[in-house]
Amino acid sequence: MQWLEAVRWDDRGLVPVIAQEKDTGDVLMFAWMNREALAQTAAKGQAVYFSRSRGKLWHKGEESGHFQTVHEIRLDCDNDVVLLSITQHGHNPSIACHTGRHSCFYQRLEGQQWQAVTPVLKDPQSIYEK
Amino acid sequence: MQWLEAVRWDDRGLVPVIAQEKDTGDVLMFAWMNREALAQTAAKGQAVYFSRSRGKLWHKGEESGHFQTVHEIRLDCDNDVVLLSITQHGHNPSIACHTGRHSCFYQRLEGQQWQAVTPVLKDPQSIYEK
Repeated sequence: MQWLEAVRWDDRGLVPVIAQEKDTGDVLMFAWMNREALAQTAAKGQAVYFSRSRGKLWHKGEESGHFQTVHEIRLDCDNDVVLLSITQHGHNPSIACHTGRHSCFYQRLEGQQWQAVTPVLKDPQSIYEK
Repeated sequence: MQWLEAVRWDDRGLVPVIAQEKDTGDVLMFAWMNREALAQTAAKGQAVYFSRSRGKLWHKGEESGHFQTVHEIRLDCDNDVVLLSITQHGHNPSIACHTGRHSCFYQRLEGQQWQAVTPVLKDPQSIYEK
């Protein structure tokens, strides 16, 4: 499909993806997609990433139940970064991070140290052992 | 410095960086930093990226005057993505994109096409020919 060809995939065939929560504006996570992941995301209306560590498609929520509804897919000026506007399902307040936190970006630089500044909302073991 | 060592730099010595506008929550741009760029960003309180195309540090605003004040530096759960909370200077409404738009993420997938959905606020030639 032509819109997929417009994306400037990197030398691994991937594009970086930012997931932003629609209602809060919070940046929840950052991941990667290949062509197939982006095509499936658009077709399903749910986020499907490419897991670099597992080397395969990763339909977010398939293990945790924490699916992401995709409202909007944006592409940047260089055609090499994707921004998703999403609703994060499965818990309220929402949990996008595998640590059981709302957002993956929970470490803040304070002086010369990274400090975890947001709480674990749910024990990750109980998320993934469903 | 230890906090710089905590970052998981990729095989090029870089880390992806998301710049989010503090007041609006808008994701304005995505870029990369190396150790020196992140160290300078923290020291100056202004965003300094690493330009992959030019192979050197890029103090955002050095040509355009559109500097970014950095309020907060966050790191994700895998220590390999940085999120900045910034104020974008130089124009009102703010312009972060080299095309003269507010955000770099101005193309939206509509059906099978990417559509530019936000306006050019200022002619890029007039931004860079100061």
